[in-house]
Order: sequence, then structure tokens, then C-alpha cells
Amino acid sequence: MAKRPLILVTNDDGITAPGLRTLISVMNQLGEVVVVAPDSPQSAMGHAITINSTLYIEEMTIDDGPQKEYACSGTPADCVKIAVNEILDRRPDICVSGINHGSNSSINVIYSGTMSAALEAGIESIPAIGFSLLDYSWGANFEHCTTFVKTIAENVLENGLNDGVVLNVNIPNKTASDIKGIKVCRQARANWKEKFDKRQNPMGRDYYWLTGEFINMDQGEDTDEWALEQDYVSIVPVQFDLTAHHAIKTLNTWDFNA
Amino acid sequence: MAKRPLILVTNDDGITAPGLRTLISVMNQLGEVVVVAPDSPQSAMGHAITINSTLYIEEMTIDDGPQKEYACSGTPADCVKIAVNEILDRRPDICVSGINHGSNSSINVIYSGTMSAALEAGIESIPAIGFSLLDYSWGANFEHCTTFVKTIAENVLENGLNDGVVLNVNIPNKTASDIKGIKVCRQARANWKEKFDKRQNPMGRDYYWLTGEFINMDQGEDTDEWALEQDYVSIVPVQFDLTAHHAIKTLNTWDFNA
Repeated sequence: MAKRPLILVTNDDGITAPGLRTLISVMNQLGEVVVVAPDSPQSAMGHAITINSTLYIEEMTIDDGPQKEYACSGTPADCVKIAVNEILDRRPDICVSGINHGSNSSINVIYSGTMSAALEAGIESIPAIGFSLLDYSWGANFEHCTTFVKTIAENVLENGLNDGVVLNVNIPNKTASDIKGIKVCRQARANWKEKFDKRQNPMGRDYYWLTGEFINMDQGEDTDEWALEQDYVSIVPVQFDLTAHHAIKTLNTWDFNA
Repeated sequence: MAKRPLILVTNDDGITAPGLRTLISVMNQLGEVVVVAPDSPQSAMGHAITINSTLYIEEMTIDDGPQKEYACSGTPADCVKIAVNEILDRRPDICVSGINHGSNSSINVIYSGTMSAALEAGIESIPAIGFSLLDYSWGANFEHCTTFVKTIAENVLENGLNDGVVLNVNIPNKTASDIKGIKVCRQARANWKEKFDKRQNPMGRDYYWLTGEFINMDQGEDTDEWALEQDYVSIVPVQFDLTAHHAIKTLNTWDFNA
């Protein structure tokens, strides 16, 4: 490549998160890196954007390195929008988000701030990847992720992605030698069986904590859940055209003039 | 139907919103209504859920009527989760969300709190519909929406919906006589061309407001944008399996062992 690619890096765990730091270190090997990440954790923000309040950005140095870094007061989707429109002087060649502390496989993609940033880039026709490690802890070990992150990002830089397609990559919490490889998958049909933990505050008012158990209802051996259980890195191509095309025919048989 | 259906009603504009009030009045004609809606506006919340703070629910009476009403301190998705798990004594037969003050057509579905509530119900295998009116104002006139809302909800109660499919209904801001009918559509390929309005706060620090212009890049005559421009009510069946199945084959040709 004649010119080094411009790489936009973001996440939802906030600009100081170790997963983001790992992602920056890999991307510095591949191109010119600009980081625009939330100034505080934004997990489970879904695809929120900030329309009724103000946004601040602040250039800062968290780690040594060639990258430029900006903290933004908004959501992950805001970070991408403001990066593309106000910070970067040209369109990025790729946007990478993560590495998330915790899984964004199967239905978790819907709630994921990490993936919302990647989807936002995809909506802007920028090739984009969200990376997640199956370990929720702040002190998670990201070392074994670097090879996979690099390989997948290199492939996207080289091959591009179809317009409207974004990659959702999840990495097992195993050592590099335990991981069997990379599998392209579909999103498993799974959900959370919620349980609300009901408590009483000191003033006697009831309140709830949301907890839950993950249920994989999908027996397929082509899903991300299956691949991750078998110690593969999973890649699901995801799209933001939510149309359930298979349902259109049925709906057209309905009688709306009753 | 032997037993009146149980109808869960929610929205993202908050429990006092006129659009919700209209939706409740229509649903009271169709079944037993329980309202669980945010205690404050939650627009553009995407599919956010509350995992790091507490949730409160409060039974209240906003309007006279047979419905039961609860305000919840969380997001639209939280409202559905807590309704199903803590408030309702049986599974609802349908969940309706809205009527949103403003469009959720095409790419707006991604940012929509209204649709995130409907999708959350869909994830729980409850037939669900999100309704939106193409008028952002609080004082919007919802009168002409009632016939369409009722017809579509009756159809879903009678026919059900495929598992994994949720309806996204948008209604033109026209009089009933100007609306030509209902069209089943696909989501148009469109996006927002953002513009950030940069200002300086009284302390001299720069801040930004997110504004933007809506761009429909899709010339198809089978899209929701086309239908709405032609004065039809649009119904897009949407799904929360985001897999871009058409991209899997290409990705399987990539070399991940380079």
C-alpha cells in the first residue's frame, strides 16, 4: 500500500480501557491511528446517540505511541460521527472498535456499544470491525487476541467489505495455543432469561437490579456460540438493514381493510 | 377470542406523551391494557439497557380508563424486561410501542427507542409492533393514526408473527383522507449526513450539537421511504438476527492463516 491506511479506533469501555490499549498497539503496526473513544464507560448503550445534550472532545495522551487520541463525552456511535465529521482530515480506511471486555456474540450484538460504533461506521460506508473478548473483567488478558485482531484487520484492509456489512468478532478467553482458528458464523438464536433482584432502599422504596442467565436456544453448528464453545474465534458478518425479507410475502396476505 | 388479550404498551417519549395516550385509547378497545413506560423521555436511546444502576417502578394514574399504568426509571428495553418479569402475571399476547413522536423509517430504526422496546419483546417471543408518526412535535395530531393502529394490531393478534419478526410501522403526517392505505415494505438504504454545530461555552471551551440532514440513497419503489412519500402507511418486518447471510460465502474465501 503506497500510503499507510488511516485507522479510526474506538470502543465502549472508555478511553483508558486495557482492551482499547491492546487494539491501539496492534493498529499502530498497520497504519496511522486516531483514537476517538468515550471519556467514560458506555457498556450496554445499544445504538444510542446524543441529540438533546452537548458533546465535548478533548485531545489527550494516555499512552506513548504514534497514535493521536481524543476523549469524547458521548456514546460510541457519537464518537464515530464526530471523528468522521470534525476530527479526521480524510475518510478513515477502516474503523475498529474494542477490544470489548466481554462477549458480544449472538443476541448481545443488539445491546452492544462496541458493535454500535462499528455499525455507525458501516452506515457511513467505512469498513468496520467490532472485537470482543469473552472476559468481562477490567484486568482481562488480551495478549492472545493480538494475532487474530491483526489478521482480520489486514484482511478487511486488503479485501474490503460489501457495503452494509460489518464484522462482529468474538475471541474465546483461552490461551493462543488452545484456540483452534477462526470461523465465519451466523448469529445464534439466544436470549437472556432475566431475573430482577428486588431490594429496598434505606427510605423503604423498592428497587431492582437487572441480572440474568444466558440461554442458547440454537443447536446449529454454524453459529457464533457453537464456534466459541469449540474454542474458535467467531466472525459474524452483520448488517443494519433489519428487514426480515422472508416475512414480506406473508404480511402481504393480510387484510388491512377489515 | 374467549379471553381478552393482554396488551403491554410502552414507548420512548415517556409515560405522559400524547402518542402513548393515543395508543392506550386504541388498545383499550382490543384487550386488557398494562402500560409500562419510561418516567422521562428516552429518544435515541437505541437498544440501551440498565445494567450498572438501579431501576424503580411506580404505579400511577395518568388518564382515566381501564388500563393499569407504571412508570419505570429505565430505558424502553428495560420497561419490557421488567414488565414481563416483575409486573405482568402472565405473558402478554402482544406488545405495542409508541406512537412515537417522529419517524422511525429506514436507518432510524437503528437509533430508535420505540423500536428497541418492540425488538426486546420480539426477543422474548412476544408479537410486537412499533408505531411512529412522522411529526416530531409534542403537540402532534395522532387522530388519523387510530384506524391504522387498530387494524394492524388486530391483524397481529389474529395471525401472529413469525418468531424473530417485529413490525416497524410509520404513519404519514397527513389527514386520514389523504392516506392511500398500508404498504408492506423493506427498509430503505438511507443515512444522516451529520453536521456538528460547534459553539463555545461561557468558560471558553468548545462544544458541539449534533444536527444533520437525512439522505435517502435508495431509488427502490418497495421501500418504507417511498411508501411514506406516496402517502402510504409503511410496515417493515424487522428482525434481530443481524447476520448478513449473503456475506458468509465471501468471507470463507479469506486467508486467515497469512
